[in-house]
Amino acid sequence: MKTLVNGQLIDREEAAVDIEDRGYQFGDGVYEVIRVYNGVLFGLHEHIGRLFRSAAEIGITLPFSAEDIEWDLQKLVQENKLIDGGVYIQTTRGKAPRKHQYDEGLEPQTTAYTFSVKKPENEQKAGAQAITAEDKRWLRCDIKSLNLLYNVMVKQKAYEAGAYEAVLIRDGAVTEGTSSNVYAVINGTVRTHPANELILNGITRMKLLGLMKENGIEVREKPLTEDELRNADEIFISSTTSELIPIVTLDGKPVGSGVPGPVAKTIQEAFQLSIQQEIGVQS
Amino acid sequence: MKTLVNGQLIDREEAAVDIEDRGYQFGDGVYEVIRVYNGVLFGLHEHIGRLFRSAAEIGITLPFSAEDIEWDLQKLVQENKLIDGGVYIQTTRGKAPRKHQYDEGLEPQTTAYTFSVKKPENEQKAGAQAITAEDKRWLRCDIKSLNLLYNVMVKQKAYEAGAYEAVLIRDGAVTEGTSSNVYAVINGTVRTHPANELILNGITRMKLLGLMKENGIEVREKPLTEDELRNADEIFISSTTSELIPIVTLDGKPVGSGVPGPVAKTIQEAFQLSIQQEIGVQS
Repeated sequence: MKTLVNGQLIDREEAAVDIEDRGYQFGDGVYEVIRVYNGVLFGLHEHIGRLFRSAAEIGITLPFSAEDIEWDLQKLVQENKLIDGGVYIQTTRGKAPRKHQYDEGLEPQTTAYTFSVKKPENEQKAGAQAITAEDKRWLRCDIKSLNLLYNVMVKQKAYEAGAYEAVLIRDGAVTEGTSSNVYAVINGTVRTHPANELILNGITRMKLLGLMKENGIEVREKPLTEDELRNADEIFISSTTSELIPIVTLDGKPVGSGVPGPVAKTIQEAFQLSIQQEIGVQS
Repeated sequence: MKTLVNGQLIDREEAAVDIEDRGYQFGDGVYEVIRVYNGVLFGLHEHIGRLFRSAAEIGITLPFSAEDIEWDLQKLVQENKLIDGGVYIQTTRGKAPRKHQYDEGLEPQTTAYTFSVKKPENEQKAGAQAITAEDKRWLRCDIKSLNLLYNVMVKQKAYEAGAYEAVLIRDGAVTEGTSSNVYAVINGTVRTHPANELILNGITRMKLLGLMKENGIEVREKPLTEDELRNADEIFISSTTSELIPIVTLDGKPVGSGVPGPVAKTIQEAFQLSIQQEIGVQS
């Protein structure tokens, strides 16, 4: 298995980082997770575009062009003969003696590797459970950074409760999941948090919003109140690896009729079709 | 130069971490910075006590006793013949294929190394400049975790403005600095944010609060409003490596009379004395 380290493909076992890499000491870096279907990196341009945006927001100048890194990731997928799975890529600000501020001239460190994905088909079909939790994250959730400890803490809480995801609520408003965007259907209209600094604007989210419009489903990007969430007809989540998963119980109580709803199913089907169209075969 | 890696002293050049160490991908770990004066780790018990507390708060069980790690750090300091400087130690949850939730049985990864410290004598004597910035960090700042990106962003802003530190303000209340605690003197009373989830309860902070009481200086642990901060007679900050530094300009405007004030000087002298007492010689 090969790993991409600063533009070079090396053996996975040899990939290591220094203990004074700023990614290790400050979480000073950004990342992307890209799905691979049939050997093709799905939404590659969008993911790399977001990687550049995240890096720019924290003052990291990526030492490659979008074209170069896309090419390198495609080489990585081919080299590892990955058909169905994903690519993880992260870039940190570089190695330096530890201090919060950073000097000019640091060399960003980029690592990328492939992994297999178990498509969550059961959850996609039958729906999954979610809990709610307070959103105590920082106020720049639009940056896809390595500062993910609160997400980890709450996702763990969800798993220990037998749930698939936790829905985060800040000051009474639903923001997103720990690693997904969150939607609710109220009287036929899909509601989701607007893409501001309180959420990560998911690539899958953007694709789904486009598909909703194409399918004549009304969408309002307006935060849901906790009360609206708890009384919604449907709830669903989206992410690169989960795709679209209906939430059928929230904090142990059934959502709507307690089974995946018609809006979620419609968008789910449209999304699978759009994957097939982009990739060229059935996923 | 030796580095402590999971209980073993190895050459610094050989110290490396895996790219799937959760510290590297999620900032999933905790740390301490300990000052070394005259070869002695200052406030060692307090720092190690806090490391254990931080780890417990995020569900990491440290794979060593306080006694063992204190002994190991002392060995590290001796081995590297460190007289005046510091020790950095961090423990992450361990290595695992990337997913937010974590399985049982992960092996926490601990690394520690020594570094030299340039005591900021000029700033301690003449005072330093600070800017203010909005506090957009997470709501668990009491945990000394590796999620430090916002601190990095704001400290960098301070440095680019020619300042030593940025004072963070959340919802109109002064919390702390990016890597220090913040105090103001108003009519002879020292005010500082209470040690709750919005600030890191500094070891130096605790020592200084004790010294203030010993020296008959009134202290109120009550958040300062931004207005109170801007009109304070004195402002000062504290941290392990800065010790106590008076802030003489805030956002370019003089604090009080624009020179280090009498309360800051009194506590500064008391702190230097307490170091000498704990360490046994003049620092």
